[in-house]
This record gives sequence, structure tokens and C-alpha cells, in this order.
Amino acid sequence: MIFIINVELFIFPTKKQMKNIKLLLSYDGTGLLGWQKTPLGPTVEQHLENALSKILQEKIKLQAASRTDAGVHAEGQVINFFTEKQKIDLEKLQKSINALLPPQIAALLIEEMPQDFHPTLNNRGKEYRYFLCNESFQKPKHRLFSWHFPYPLDLEKMEAAALYLVGTHDFSTFCNELPLSKKNPICTLNSLKIEQIEENRFCFKVEGDRFLFRMVRNLVGTLAYAGAEKLELSEISSLLETRKRKFAGVTAPAHGLHLMKVFY
Amino acid sequence: MIFIINVELFIFPTKKQMKNIKLLLSYDGTGLLGWQKTPLGPTVEQHLENALSKILQEKIKLQAASRTDAGVHAEGQVINFFTEKQKIDLEKLQKSINALLPPQIAALLIEEMPQDFHPTLNNRGKEYRYFLCNESFQKPKHRLFSWHFPYPLDLEKMEAAALYLVGTHDFSTFCNELPLSKKNPICTLNSLKIEQIEENRFCFKVEGDRFLFRMVRNLVGTLAYAGAEKLELSEISSLLETRKRKFAGVTAPAHGLHLMKVFY
Repeated sequence: MIFIINVELFIFPTKKQMKNIKLLLSYDGTGLLGWQKTPLGPTVEQHLENALSKILQEKIKLQAASRTDAGVHAEGQVINFFTEKQKIDLEKLQKSINALLPPQIAALLIEEMPQDFHPTLNNRGKEYRYFLCNESFQKPKHRLFSWHFPYPLDLEKMEAAALYLVGTHDFSTFCNELPLSKKNPICTLNSLKIEQIEENRFCFKVEGDRFLFRMVRNLVGTLAYAGAEKLELSEISSLLETRKRKFAGVTAPAHGLHLMKVFY
Repeated sequence: MIFIINVELFIFPTKKQMKNIKLLLSYDGTGLLGWQKTPLGPTVEQHLENALSKILQEKIKLQAASRTDAGVHAEGQVINFFTEKQKIDLEKLQKSINALLPPQIAALLIEEMPQDFHPTLNNRGKEYRYFLCNESFQKPKHRLFSWHFPYPLDLEKMEAAALYLVGTHDFSTFCNELPLSKKNPICTLNSLKIEQIEENRFCFKVEGDRFLFRMVRNLVGTLAYAGAEKLELSEISSLLETRKRKFAGVTAPAHGLHLMKVFY
């Protein structure tokens, strides 16, 4: 094992000789099929890989802090890649990337990182925001970025419900993936705040160390159900214990969700 | 002639018997060919006329405070129409309109007005806002609502230039319509304020009694040229006197412009 690695060091450029480049990405998820490559349509990963391969003329493999779903937006997605190029003008590279990316995706920052930096494994947590409009109609400017949930919402009920969810728990109830047993369902929700940012418009700020599949959208759907009295507080207090997705609220739609920040 | 009108009074419902309904409209102008009907593609007027004719089952004629250009957005467009219906539940009508309109257009308010209310003739003025991003790239969330002008801008220079434009003047220099002589070119610009709302993002707030064709976009293009030192303050001070469009700055693109409010 040690022998093989040593041989590689002399023959191939290894990760140790490559540069580890980090990008801070923002995207409008409308019309994109999320982060991860799929033959079904355009994704952020595919667009970025195309741009980088064209600029650097080498095969680029991307790693992202969060594999955002189709339609989800990002203001602070963190990704990295390794390049064989030894001399890189980072400012120029950022400009070239932004010139080749479609306008719904942009590289906000670029930085060279230590060899061992990994956007998924190293991150300590993430902040998501979820926007919801609850007028009978939705203002056109919000329609691609907010859930239209046209029912009266009781902010205090939502805040009371959120208190049952903050902390370190088994969040299987809020995971849309089966079988549950395959992954560690224990997550820590550091904070879950609901702000009424204007008349008939709410922002859910969710911060946690890790998130299960569709967990934020299930949390928001459940809080909206609590606010609209489709779920009683007594039901919510025991939701986590049930470990059954069917007892929680609806999965809020993707287009209201925004990945704001990844913490390292 | 008088005889015919008198006959109509007895046979047809006239405007005096009709209800004058006002709507406050908001729209995301992306992909719309502006307010006014055209065979070239979808417009706000066409969508709204279709919805109202379907609901009220009568021919509806719309009048708007501002005939916004293709791609321009509105948060407070005011329109009216007359209906023969004598009993109208306005709240229900608004819900029906919003249910039939595509999601990029919404009726925010509905109100019955006196017979003589006319959205264009009665208005005392309008407020527009124009957004501009001047980073090397544009954040994806702003791309459909702001002009991407990737040059350093000097806010003080723009403010100094704006001082030459505020007030009552012949604004022919800022009008994209020829021949100029056909229309009254005298307008009063009550205020023209430029705010840096975040790093690399500016908002131009323009308020005036009336506006010539593309006037706001020409004002903003000229101020941006002043801020980027493509036009000297000495040139701007004499711009109005020239009455020649070619001496002013570029026409800023439509998608940065937002009709905010119509004053009555």
C-alpha cells in the first residue's frame, strides 16, 4: 500500500502536487435540476464542470458542501476542485468562470485552500433560509423564490412549535429517504427562527450541523401546518419520537429554499 | 350626432350607468412585451383583458397610468376599466382575476372609483426605481431586475450630475421619440436620488409629474456614464439645452426599471 503511493508520487501528479481551489457560488435554482449532475437536464455541477474543463483543459471533479435539490437557490454554496495547473491567476480564473457560466450561476469568491480542505467533510454546519408568502395571491417578484401558502399563519404557534425541534435529536420524522436505518439520523438544529419580514411574508432561518434529505423543507412545512392549525402543538411535541415521516407536515416546495452559508 | 347619442342613452348602458373599477397591479416584466397589446407576444394588457372578459363576460377596455415598455417591472401600476355589471363583489372579483392571471402578474388592490376617474389623465406624477449592479459579475438573484454595468461608479459624481436634471425643464435630450415637436417636452423632475443599497448595487429613485418615452432609462444611463467618467460634469450641465438625444448617455436596459407608485 505504501509502496504504491510512493510510485504514484513519481509517475502521476497526485493531489499533493495539485492546487485545491475553493469557490463560493450563488445560483438562482429556477430551471436547474439542482447541484448534482444528471442526464435529465441542466445542473449547477454540470455547468461549472463544463466551464472549468474548458478553461483549465483538464478533467475537473467537483465536490460541494450541499447537494441542493432541483429548484433550490444558493447564496453561499461552497465547492472545491483540484487542478494540475501550478501557476494560476485566481482573479482571472474567477472572471473566466463567470464569463462561461450561464447568468443564473455566479462564482462570488475564489480562494486556494490547503490540500486537505474538503467542503463536505470539513464543514461544521449550514444556514438555510426559507421564504413563504401567505396572502391570497403572491406578489410576482416573490413567486420564484418563496412558497405561496395562502392561509392565515399564527407566528406565535410556529415559534412554539419550533421550540420542540431545536436541539440534538433523531430527525427521521423529517427525512424523505428510505430506509432510514442506512444513515445517521442524529442532527443538531442550532437554531430555527421565524421572522415576519413584511405583511404576509415570513422567513425561516435554520441553522444546524447537518441535514437529512429534504429536512429543512419538511421542518418548514410542519411549522406552516402548525401556524395554520393543521397540526396541533400537542402533535408536534411528539413528532420526533414517532420517527414516521407521515406524521409531519407537507414537504415545502424547493423554490422557497435558499442555502445561505456553510460554516467551517 | 346629438340625436344618435340620445338614442344610445335609452338603448345601451352608457358609461354613466357603468361602474369604474380601479386595480393596483404588480408584475415581473421578464418575458412580457410591456403593458400595451401587440400581436408580437404576451403583454400585461392582453393577459388582464383576457381574464376580465372571461370573468365579466363583456368586452373590457383597459386604461393604464403608464404604458410600461417590454421587460419593465411594476409594483404599483394603476389601471381602470368600466363594467356593466351592477352588483360586484370586489373581493371575489380580485380573487378571480388573480386566479386567471399568469403568476408574473397580480392585482394587489381593487376599488370602485367615481365615474370621472382616469388613471392617466388624473395622475399627478409617478415614482420609478432603477436598480444597477456594478460588480464584475452580477449576483444571479438580481440578474432579471437590475442592470449589470460592470464599471466603477463614483456616487458623488452621479449625485452632482443629478442636480443638473432635477426641476422643470425641456427634457427632449432624454426622449427616444422622434419627431420631438409633436409632444410637450416640458416635465418636472421632483426628485432624483441615488442610493448605494449594498456593495456594488445602486438604486435610482426618480419622481416626476410626467415622463417622455424612455426618459427614466435615459436619465439613469446618463448618470451611470457620469459616475463612470464616460461623461464629464461640464457636458452634463449643458445636456438639457442641446435637446439632442445623442449627447446624453446610453439608454439603460428595461429590466432594471420598476414602476413603483402613481400619485393622484
